[in-house]
Amino acid sequence: MARRAGVSPATASRALSDHPHVAEATRARVWEAARELEYVASPEASGLASGRTGRVAVVVPHLSRWWFGAALEGLVAQLSAAAKDVLLYRLGDADARRTFFTDLPARRRADAVVLLGFGVDDEERERLERIGVGIVAAGTRVGSHPSVSIDDHAAGRQAVDHLLNLGHRRIGMIETTDPELDPGQPGHRSAAYRRALADAGVGIDPALVVSVPWSPEGGARAMGQLLGLSDPPTAVYAHSDEVAVGAVGTLRRTGLQVPRDVSVIGIDDHPLAALTDLSTVAQPVFEQGAEAGRMVLAGLLGEPVEERVTVPTHLVIRGSTAPPRSPSGES
Amino acid sequence: MARRAGVSPATASRALSDHPHVAEATRARVWEAARELEYVASPEASGLASGRTGRVAVVVPHLSRWWFGAALEGLVAQLSAAAKDVLLYRLGDADARRTFFTDLPARRRADAVVLLGFGVDDEERERLERIGVGIVAAGTRVGSHPSVSIDDHAAGRQAVDHLLNLGHRRIGMIETTDPELDPGQPGHRSAAYRRALADAGVGIDPALVVSVPWSPEGGARAMGQLLGLSDPPTAVYAHSDEVAVGAVGTLRRTGLQVPRDVSVIGIDDHPLAALTDLSTVAQPVFEQGAEAGRMVLAGLLGEPVEERVTVPTHLVIRGSTAPPRSPSGES
Repeated sequence: MARRAGVSPATASRALSDHPHVAEATRARVWEAARELEYVASPEASGLASGRTGRVAVVVPHLSRWWFGAALEGLVAQLSAAAKDVLLYRLGDADARRTFFTDLPARRRADAVVLLGFGVDDEERERLERIGVGIVAAGTRVGSHPSVSIDDHAAGRQAVDHLLNLGHRRIGMIETTDPELDPGQPGHRSAAYRRALADAGVGIDPALVVSVPWSPEGGARAMGQLLGLSDPPTAVYAHSDEVAVGAVGTLRRTGLQVPRDVSVIGIDDHPLAALTDLSTVAQPVFEQGAEAGRMVLAGLLGEPVEERVTVPTHLVIRGSTAPPRSPSGES
Repeated sequence: MARRAGVSPATASRALSDHPHVAEATRARVWEAARELEYVASPEASGLASGRTGRVAVVVPHLSRWWFGAALEGLVAQLSAAAKDVLLYRLGDADARRTFFTDLPARRRADAVVLLGFGVDDEERERLERIGVGIVAAGTRVGSHPSVSIDDHAAGRQAVDHLLNLGHRRIGMIETTDPELDPGQPGHRSAAYRRALADAGVGIDPALVVSVPWSPEGGARAMGQLLGLSDPPTAVYAHSDEVAVGAVGTLRRTGLQVPRDVSVIGIDDHPLAALTDLSTVAQPVFEQGAEAGRMVLAGLLGEPVEERVTVPTHLVIRGSTAPPRSPSGES
């Protein structure tokens, strides 16, 4: 299709996803070529890709973490209802990731590519565009390709504002970093903390912010570090529920009670959160996968696809958050 | 290949997996046909399947539960290291399951089929065999096809014997049923409980056995039912950690302490178990997926594949189990 339109696959992909940096004449030529080819190849598929394989490639960094499984579940449900086969690629470590973006195994094997829960840098995005099929992302943004995700800044605000509203002023943050995943995401969740405190007129104490690799064990260690401060926090905001549960474990082991001594809140509404009575900010994960599936199917049918869908998050108050024991400032 | 050997695909599949009910002459004919075809089709693949697609179909009932994600992770790691593509099929509800076994979407699209963590009845197995490629199972057994799993009876014994060894005599069981999954599995875990008690000379009280659908909420409800007995148990054995964690939640909410008032043990060593200090029987899940992947690859290369691999489980003693408060019999 790109060849027929006389443009590069990347340009064709951008044109079909209504990228702003494509000249109108080019866009028209690409759409025309796409339409011509589709009428030949398959009346059912007339959109982002050729529709020749009947398969959609799904790329994930992990499979055993809850978010990825739940998002994949929603995505696969949509795609299989439309009789599309799912080709699954797992990036694994840095080497496997480099190999994936170099060899592009999904090329000619799938009609579209979905990235689930991780971001790519510009070089990786450009390589991916060489596959010449539609790209859709869930849980992250990839250039101007159609994507669905939460507003990480808003989610962080919901969590920190809840702690502020309860009267907490000395609020710790357990910030997670995962070089494999979207580098932008922890940034937004951290910025939300700083902004919420600033808006409430609370000064930022750098000692209250601990960065750890994403894991419950990371949360457990970070909580230990916060408890070691001469003036420890009365409440802790963790970037994810699994990290928050690790923090609660440390509190329990040191004989402190949640929320009487320290309040804890996470983000996600992981099934674990309900089980452990953890307050959190819920995000619809199955639904993000399903929405990505709908975007792929619409693209393959040549229907318009929204560039950015943001699914709402909401505060879920459970038993791990309460007002501080003593008025703020008198700990 | 089955056609060339003049046998049904099911017979061919059985012959290639060294099923005992295949006549030696038939077996030889099938292997010869397989070899002839493979020499034509691909020098690299000469085993259970034709090796023409380079893809392996993986069938799962769930994606967002930990066991399935972890097993899939191990399986995909093996297959992608051998440059095989993974075609993912999720069964979903009963309708989707019926459709899958009727339409056999993996037919002609994959060189082998892997069933992950669920059993099939005889009719489903026979339909699957019509695809005419090798079948491998992980976490369950499927006829005499190569499979890898734990010994569920042994795992159950490890859990219940631990409670007996601590001195418990009034031991409850939270038995889980999941019609979507292997009907045999809860059976073995339940039989282990009855056998362990009988071996210890402890009578079975039917009131101490509660059956619930698999879920943490099921575990929470079952624990409530056990606590409502006039003579409640001093220890509880749950068929899985996620169910055990639900039970612990009920104990905490009713003000009881674990393990002081009631000991709780599960099976799995779910990451949650370490986080919540739950004693359990650990099973290697990633490893079962990886072993299934090795079985598939060996089969595709025409190498011998073991019919049944049993991976060992082991007791992990954490803080949720302790001796009963009072000597047994005087509660």
